[in-house]
Amino acid sequence: MVNTLIQPGDNPDITLERKKATFDIHQMGAFIHGGEHNLQRRKEILEFVESRPEFKDPIPPEFMTREDRVMNNGRKAVAMTDLADAIDGSDFFGEGIYYQGLIMGRDLHGMSLHYAMFFPTIQNQSDDEQLDNWLPLVVSRAIIGTYAQTELGHGTNLQKLETRATYDSKTKEFILHSPQITAAKWWPGGLGKTANHAIVMAQLYTQGKCFGPHPFFVQLRDLDTHMPMKGVKLGDIGPKLGINGSDNGFLLFDQYRIPRKNMFMRYAKVNEDGTYIAPKHSKLGFGAMVFVRSIMIKDQAMQLAAAATIAVRYSAVRRQGEPVTGAGEVQIIDYLTQRHRLLPQVARAYAFHFAACQTRDMYLKLTEDLNTGSTELLPEIHIISSGLKSIVSWETAQGIEQCRLGCGGHGYSQASAFPEIYAYAVGGCTYEGENLVMLLQVARALNKAAEGVISGSAKLADLCEYLGRKGNGKSSFTVISSATPQNIIHDFEHVARTQVFRAHELLKKNQSKMSNEEAWNRTSVEWAKAARMHVKLYLIKNFFNKVAEAVDSSIRHPLHELAMLYALDLIAAAGHEFLRNGFMIDSQLDSVRDGIYVLLEKLRPNCVALVDAFDLSDRELHSVLGRRDGNVYEHLIKWAQQSQLNQKEVLPTFDKYFKPMMLNARANL
Amino acid sequence: MVNTLIQPGDNPDITLERKKATFDIHQMGAFIHGGEHNLQRRKEILEFVESRPEFKDPIPPEFMTREDRVMNNGRKAVAMTDLADAIDGSDFFGEGIYYQGLIMGRDLHGMSLHYAMFFPTIQNQSDDEQLDNWLPLVVSRAIIGTYAQTELGHGTNLQKLETRATYDSKTKEFILHSPQITAAKWWPGGLGKTANHAIVMAQLYTQGKCFGPHPFFVQLRDLDTHMPMKGVKLGDIGPKLGINGSDNGFLLFDQYRIPRKNMFMRYAKVNEDGTYIAPKHSKLGFGAMVFVRSIMIKDQAMQLAAAATIAVRYSAVRRQGEPVTGAGEVQIIDYLTQRHRLLPQVARAYAFHFAACQTRDMYLKLTEDLNTGSTELLPEIHIISSGLKSIVSWETAQGIEQCRLGCGGHGYSQASAFPEIYAYAVGGCTYEGENLVMLLQVARALNKAAEGVISGSAKLADLCEYLGRKGNGKSSFTVISSATPQNIIHDFEHVARTQVFRAHELLKKNQSKMSNEEAWNRTSVEWAKAARMHVKLYLIKNFFNKVAEAVDSSIRHPLHELAMLYALDLIAAAGHEFLRNGFMIDSQLDSVRDGIYVLLEKLRPNCVALVDAFDLSDRELHSVLGRRDGNVYEHLIKWAQQSQLNQKEVLPTFDKYFKPMMLNARANL
Repeated sequence: MVNTLIQPGDNPDITLERKKATFDIHQMGAFIHGGEHNLQRRKEILEFVESRPEFKDPIPPEFMTREDRVMNNGRKAVAMTDLADAIDGSDFFGEGIYYQGLIMGRDLHGMSLHYAMFFPTIQNQSDDEQLDNWLPLVVSRAIIGTYAQTELGHGTNLQKLETRATYDSKTKEFILHSPQITAAKWWPGGLGKTANHAIVMAQLYTQGKCFGPHPFFVQLRDLDTHMPMKGVKLGDIGPKLGINGSDNGFLLFDQYRIPRKNMFMRYAKVNEDGTYIAPKHSKLGFGAMVFVRSIMIKDQAMQLAAAATIAVRYSAVRRQGEPVTGAGEVQIIDYLTQRHRLLPQVARAYAFHFAACQTRDMYLKLTEDLNTGSTELLPEIHIISSGLKSIVSWETAQGIEQCRLGCGGHGYSQASAFPEIYAYAVGGCTYEGENLVMLLQVARALNKAAEGVISGSAKLADLCEYLGRKGNGKSSFTVISSATPQNIIHDFEHVARTQVFRAHELLKKNQSKMSNEEAWNRTSVEWAKAARMHVKLYLIKNFFNKVAEAVDSSIRHPLHELAMLYALDLIAAAGHEFLRNGFMIDSQLDSVRDGIYVLLEKLRPNCVALVDAFDLSDRELHSVLGRRDGNVYEHLIKWAQQSQLNQKEVLPTFDKYFKPMMLNARANL
Repeated sequence: MVNTLIQPGDNPDITLERKKATFDIHQMGAFIHGGEHNLQRRKEILEFVESRPEFKDPIPPEFMTREDRVMNNGRKAVAMTDLADAIDGSDFFGEGIYYQGLIMGRDLHGMSLHYAMFFPTIQNQSDDEQLDNWLPLVVSRAIIGTYAQTELGHGTNLQKLETRATYDSKTKEFILHSPQITAAKWWPGGLGKTANHAIVMAQLYTQGKCFGPHPFFVQLRDLDTHMPMKGVKLGDIGPKLGINGSDNGFLLFDQYRIPRKNMFMRYAKVNEDGTYIAPKHSKLGFGAMVFVRSIMIKDQAMQLAAAATIAVRYSAVRRQGEPVTGAGEVQIIDYLTQRHRLLPQVARAYAFHFAACQTRDMYLKLTEDLNTGSTELLPEIHIISSGLKSIVSWETAQGIEQCRLGCGGHGYSQASAFPEIYAYAVGGCTYEGENLVMLLQVARALNKAAEGVISGSAKLADLCEYLGRKGNGKSSFTVISSATPQNIIHDFEHVARTQVFRAHELLKKNQSKMSNEEAWNRTSVEWAKAARMHVKLYLIKNFFNKVAEAVDSSIRHPLHELAMLYALDLIAAAGHEFLRNGFMIDSQLDSVRDGIYVLLEKLRPNCVALVDAFDLSDRELHSVLGRRDGNVYEHLIKWAQQSQLNQKEVLPTFDKYFKPMMLNARANL
């Protein structure tokens, strides 16, 4: 099969793998990325970025100090926004995150939140006058803003934020104040050293009463000197697991005064005399959250795709062990245990990417509906996007680690890129809503749906429709060769439904013995399980639906095998739920496991092509192990030579510590 | 209950937790650490280390550059060995790793392998003359050595190492040579910049024949200038996921000559004329491997204990969410999901620590037996130590991440210490034998045992004895309150045995259709499963045995609950294996899950005390979140103020990039 990645001088093992494939990676790539046009645009944007000297790193970031990294990212952030005409700015889901990723790698920069949060909040929360005042400053980059909500002592529970904005009707100002250390704003990107403005969420006090958290437009630093304003204390929060090119910051106010007009007034208002005017309808901004999550899920999927690409390519060129003495060492991808480790990660990356695309489409549909006043889809989409964020970020993180461990010692080196991929991606389990909290939100919705079904009043939307059906009580699974998507989805529906009603029943039972809150708490582990099953069912359905869209059988077949692998892997992992009430019997579950082994054989010739098709360039992968050309070893040495420690042949440690120690010992021998 | 950790000024939430406990943490600490004497020694060694200015870091290592870190660790390594009389050097399992950990934190240093590998290899492999020549140099630290075995292209499969040592009988020298890039030695600690000597494993060629890998004593750098010897090229391999204070190195030889006498001659020999003399009996050094693994397992257990301590303490002082409006925010440890996340990690830390102690005892018994010429125990102990290394390192890594994720955003900060704990501990999945390779070694032994049982010729040692028994085919588990260790072990034995024989049968079936090697490959995933069950069974048995040794019921009770939690958690995770053939029915497995929830309630008052009892000082924890006093928030701010980025109020990025951008925008508004 033609594979456009094959070039002279490549490692022959990887070339052979590419020739063995049964499909055209270009065609698969177009399918993955939503068409030939998008694939072409990826190429053009890559070429543009590679062509501009502004986007070159002086040395790879992994050899830089944190200070140099922040400096380098600041430089690139300005250039990136200077040159943003190279992309279609309206397509952030496609071109935007791709362009940013090519330039920033797996890191953020001081202006990340200027675009991700400051800009959209000003658009959505300003009244007309405010918009006229502020939007030009933001768009033109005359100021740099961030978004300060989370506090040192307060994250998920917004109602308990401590930062206060107290209205003083005498001066017509708000006084921003952090009553104690736990009120310090903590985490906002760019807050530490870059931003000179922020949107600050603070408890609004006026006329002696608290009206809850509201957003304010706040200048933090002098525009010319960049020194903090009097009454403002701020700085960097220190190094993190990853994303250390970003200056996440803290912020404390000491009776800091801002004009009344700096309260965002599109919805709630405070009049000059201090009268609070409540918003007519609370705009919850679910739509924006769905969009942010679709981007997160896509980003996660691509990180997992990168990890899988690196691990699979390396496993094709790494030879180790000689099962048949004298026959030579084998490619490690030939070990069943290695494919069992890696191929499910490839399948997940496909599944998650397709789910991200679907979430984006749901968001677009939702926006259309909202324009016509229909909000019917909103709760359901909000819920599935919360659930997906949770499942995808966690399984991505786990999958990346499996890929890393599958590369042995070299996976532990930063040359592999796995350390930065993991550190970057696993943050997704925590930001934008802690995963377990997210799952319990899904669970609340499922509980409501279950109650609706039981009381006969259910109005179930598409994604919960299966809760209202009764399946037949037996799985029809026999062997992989006769398994159909419909049957597998049916089985998964049965199991998800069973767990939802099981949790519901347990909750009812607990409620009869204790308070509702405590009953929910005692049932929460079972509810989290139910939420996971609900989301996984969605992922499977969506994967199979997507496969059915593939017109050409040469790409549909391997996609179908991947989707099957994804599904069977999930069934095997939740085996005991499938055995419950005799829904499956032992031999069926054994067949599921056999089916996995069969698929791992069938997928063997397409391993490399399936990851090649993600269309991840060496620039994006940023990994010596995952190089397109498979020439890993010589480049590991070249990479190592750039190590900070290799810039001098003899380190100062020798003269200072080790030489005196050894001389002393020799003198006393 | 008295808790010696309570002090005035502590966070009241954590003090209250300590008062709620039902046992004395000092008594539990003595039980964990093998007696009052050891607990006292921990205190003395800590006080000694804290008292010496040599062991102070100028700033916390997380704020240092890599160069500064290597420098600082070099300094401390010399001081640490200068002052080693403070500890009982013969007790490396106890005092040695504790002392090193207190000084080095979660990092290594240029001399780590001097002690861990160079020294013992010289002791074991030298003939008498060599020992006289070399040992004094090593002991006195007149030279610094490392151990160079792994190559860029070769890890697990030692037979395929490429570095050559070719004997030249004319000059009576060996010529060390790296025939190609894949032959580069890669990874040895201290090789990059610190060591001036190494033991090098190389293929021995003499009289035109290859005799396989042998060890050589090789000088790498000039003693006075520290410059590489001519024909030697070496350097640092670059930054890694963790352990970046250590200069792991690479090494290439270009026709580098060393005297014949630098081949280690205790076993194999090469005469002056080049005649190779094979060793009389190949000394495999299994004993030393068992010892190294017992230390690894203990180290892993203590890293998990540290992670659990941090997460549990933080969960006691972190308040978030208000399930009952107006009742105030609750401690997050009160959420069942949080305890479900964390307490199994506490239980694992106990289980792994007790397993490490047991492995050390087996090693001591083994050494005694070997002295009397008995090698009966050897294979069995070697196998279980391989299996434990694999299971413990993987579950430790997973457990640490659960603890980190349980701390939300703050867990992602390096202030939490989780990033360094994870990076350090997860290396254990790869070094000293890749985990899956280790499990398949266990599997080979289990397969042999299974064959023995079937053919009636089994001579089963203690740890495999259950394979020869027939249990009754039903689990007797009903509810947690009536469950006994014996019953639970019985159930686990049944399931482990079933999986071993299942894999054995599958192997036989495959062997009838394909080559033995391919049959093994196709069965390997099932065999890895069997090996895991075998090791987990051992961990459960050992935990319960250890609990039975606790005389005082006030500590035995919570230990028993932890052991039960550990066991039920493992059963729930392998649920479908327990349902196989109706060994358990659905309702029994539901009872297992209920049992877990019951235990999570019962253990609630002892959460903090159970981690306090690990006796980990703030110095060892090195975590703002895990502080003994619970005063987390003010110290997070103090910690952040040390950030590299906070050393200047305005970074150069402002004048260089952001100011021009903003000025330009303002000029054009």
